Amino acid sequence: MAKSRFEYVRNYEQDLSILPNTYIVIRVDGRGFHKISKEYDFAKPNDRRALDLMNVTAKSIVEQFPETLCAYGQSDEYSFVLKRDCALFERRQAKLVSTFAATFTAQYIFRWPQFFTEPLKGWLLPTFDARTVIYPTIGEIRDYLSWRQADCHINNLYNTSYWTLVLRGGMSEHEAEQTLKGTNSSDKNELLFSQFSINYNCEDEMYRKGTIITAVRERGKRRIKEAHVDVIGDEFWKTCGFP
Amino acid sequence: MAKSRFEYVRNYEQDLSILPNTYIVIRVDGRGFHKISKEYDFAKPNDRRALDLMNVTAKSIVEQFPETLCAYGQSDEYSFVLKRDCALFERRQAKLVSTFAATFTAQYIFRWPQFFTEPLKGWLLPTFDARTVIYPTIGEIRDYLSWRQADCHINNLYNTSYWTLVLRGGMSEHEAEQTLKGTNSSDKNELLFSQFSINYNCEDEMYRKGTIITAVRERGKRRIKEAHVDVIGDEFWKTCGFP
Amino acid sequence: MAKSRFEYVRNYEQDLSILPNTYIVIRVDGRGFHKISKEYDFAKPNDRRALDLMNVTAKSIVEQFPETLCAYGQSDEYSFVLKRDCALFERRQAKLVSTFAATFTAQYIFRWPQFFTEPLKGWLLPTFDARTVIYPTIGEIRDYLSWRQADCHINNLYNTSYWTLVLRGGMSEHEAEQTLKGTNSSDKNELLFSQFSINYNCEDEMYRKGTIITAVRERGKRRIKEAHVDVIGDEFWKTCGFP
Amino acid sequence: MAKSRFEYVRNYEQDLSILPNTYIVIRVDGRGFHKISKEYDFAKPNDRRALDLMNVTAKSIVEQFPETLCAYGQSDEYSFVLKRDCALFERRQAKLVSTFAATFTAQYIFRWPQFFTEPLKGWLLPTFDARTVIYPTIGEIRDYLSWRQADCHINNLYNTSYWTLVLRGGMSEHEAEQTLKGTNSSDKNELLFSQFSINYNCEDEMYRKGTIITAVRERGKRRIKEAHVDVIGDEFWKTCGFP
Repeated sequence: MAKSRFEYVRNYEQDLSILPNTYIVIRVDGRGFHKISKEYDFAKPNDRRALDLMNVTAKSIVEQFPETLCAYGQSDEYSFVLKRDCALFERRQAKLVSTFAATFTAQYIFRWPQFFTEPLKGWLLPTFDARTVIYPTIGEIRDYLSWRQADCHINNLYNTSYWTLVLRGGMSEHEAEQTLKGTNSSDKNELLFSQFSINYNCEDEMYRKGTIITAVRERGKRRIKEAHVDVIGDEFWKTCGFP
Repeated sequence: MAKSRFEYVRNYEQDLSILPNTYIVIRVDGRGFHKISKEYDFAKPNDRRALDLMNVTAKSIVEQFPETLCAYGQSDEYSFVLKRDCALFERRQAKLVSTFAATFTAQYIFRWPQFFTEPLKGWLLPTFDARTVIYPTIGEIRDYLSWRQADCHINNLYNTSYWTLVLRGGMSEHEAEQTLKGTNSSDKNELLFSQFSINYNCEDEMYRKGTIITAVRERGKRRIKEAHVDVIGDEFWKTCGFP
Repeated sequence: MAKSRFEYVRNYEQDLSILPNTYIVIRVDGRGFHKISKEYDFAKPNDRRALDLMNVTAKSIVEQFPETLCAYGQSDEYSFVLKRDCALFERRQAKLVSTFAATFTAQYIFRWPQFFTEPLKGWLLPTFDARTVIYPTIGEIRDYLSWRQADCHINNLYNTSYWTLVLRGGMSEHEAEQTLKGTNSSDKNELLFSQFSINYNCEDEMYRKGTIITAVRERGKRRIKEAHVDVIGDEFWKTCGFP
Repeated sequence: MAKSRFEYVRNYEQDLSILPNTYIVIRVDGRGFHKISKEYDFAKPNDRRALDLMNVTAKSIVEQFPETLCAYGQSDEYSFVLKRDCALFERRQAKLVSTFAATFTAQYIFRWPQFFTEPLKGWLLPTFDARTVIYPTIGEIRDYLSWRQADCHINNLYNTSYWTLVLRGGMSEHEAEQTLKGTNSSDKNELLFSQFSINYNCEDEMYRKGTIITAVRERGKRRIKEAHVDVIGDEFWKTCGFP
């Protein structure tokens, strides 16, 4: 059996290694969650069970990979920030994205029954893809997380307005869409308050701000903490203890 | 909420697209399956349930992704060959590896109870990583599959000999290792036959040759077939109908 | 002198190697040749000396690098097609583009006095950048060369019309531009013929078709040939003898 | 003329852009300078004319590309450090390496007659290739330059010893090589001093330390300065004014 005759095919592998001494962000993203959320009857605009499942899954990832500095999640996405000196998988890009996507997916599916009574269906399993983005400085990491949180705010304010118009205001989905077209943030706040007596700022902080998971050393142990706080202003960055 | 101020961080994404008009191989590989096989008591040298689970999982992948030409699996790995004109995810490398790793993992975990009575444990879930390798011609795809099958042969002959020495010959693992050191294929065949009356060539073809899954069009329908045949010689390539 | 303390910086090099068994096209392109052609008084629409210099330079490159299958040039650009099994510089991308750009530039500058009486000026030296493009099949190489030749045709027909209107028709550059706006190929052919009695198809083939350089083996020797022929139709490809 | 039919070949271009907000080092390296130095009779161990030509060439590059922070040269190599916010050629890697290699080569050839009386020969023109290395912090740039300077020191001490043994000691090249085998820095210093009364530390600083070119703003103007100083210790870095 001439093994060696075929082994030249290994030389076609082009293994991309991520530049040393940079922060690696791995963003995990739900595939086709529009369909998933319909099939498994996610509540609108936010499904508490689905978000709790995301958070508990993310925490298990942060626990498993001690190179993780922090993680930020909203909706069906989670971003994991790896330390700049992280040497996990020799920083090989394909290994990193595939492992984070697979491990996140595995834990999400395994923990599903803890949050949902309806069992998963084999023909529509929730899965997550992943990508890496590289940042040379902590300043860019701060801006990255701010970007995701700003995105969370904008989407959640829109979705809250939209589903309130539909579910409580009796509008069709098309009517709700038309009503919100061209409105800015204060328009939406005003609409929610004047028509439905909803003070958007009193909505659940997890919905409005997403979830930030940090790993801190306390008395020699690594402790994983979850918070729903502003990461755009200075406060978080003064106390987070990131290097 | 100044969204735009942070959006510059998007420009750091370096999206690698795979060269057009080339075959893409995505090889999915079990992470830490040595530990998995111990924890879940996989039979040695081959666990029928584990291999059947791999095969049924791989088939569901081939079904889900019609761009797949064929797949080859052995042990805890599976290689998926995508057609050269495949445009899945615009051929984005991170998206491809993360999706295949996650979908394979999801299906494997979901189908686990169909093959194993022992339930999975959250602290040791089976997961798979993935990589891509690119080949410009079908000749290289043939050599790639031959390489994996030669690897299967060599490993399975070794493992069969090793575990026969341990389980039936009463050797310690160290003694078995020492006994096999420096032996070639015919030595191992001879050892199995003379000492244990095992004709290696009569062992299960799935163990000796691995599994090749092909997708063929029959009467306008795509049909997924599984076989345990030689892919090194000409026979398979004359009849496979690959473009 | 602790050399080793600093040597870690070598690990930051990310050496990109080009996929084996593919055709490599290196396209060399004049930098700021609009300015160069003005400063050194290139004739319009075509400067015979400049094109001859391009061709003689390209031929010296094809001679120096025996891995070159053929080359195609027009205006201030030249494309070199390397054989698919080319192992030059272990197919390292940075080495290939920088060497071709530098060697082309060196030969162009060295041979300049053979074609131009006006000496070069240190503050405006002609230089060339380079890029690589990879193609898996000879069919794509044919289409690549056809693309460049079609580009040559379109540009040369336009430039010939434009400069004829300016130099013989007495138009301003702006008037010539306006006159040609929206015209197609036959409009331009007609304009040249009816107003200036120029039969475009009788213009110099080098201007209309560019230059194709091929390297062929004749009686054990590699011979470099230059032609100004159509590379879009079948004729060239039937006789070129490319593998 | 169906231009569009061929234009798909453009999609095969894979344009690599360098990560934003990082220092880009472009190292330009003489191709086959062993042969060049023999053919054009470079003095040993250092040819003043050749080094002066390198320096004047490098200075013209620093002048032409204002994004250059500094440059360091020794022997037949020069490293150019681009500012971390450099947007030259949209940070496209192929464009950067090919342009620096070509422009350096062009200037070197153009200025050759200012330093050498012997004219260049077309069949052996000096050319330079180039590569990029990316560093996220100024600390790594310091270590990179220290690495090159340590390399300069080690090579120059060796070459000075070697050529002194040959040219003044009357040894054959082989004998000189054998004599130096296994010697460390102080052995070589001692050998030069005791046998040839050469105090190595009194040798020309340009030979021992290489050349550092910096661009500083003085009264609103960018001024290019050349020095032959230590870049490993703190002194240089306290006064260089790099951001």
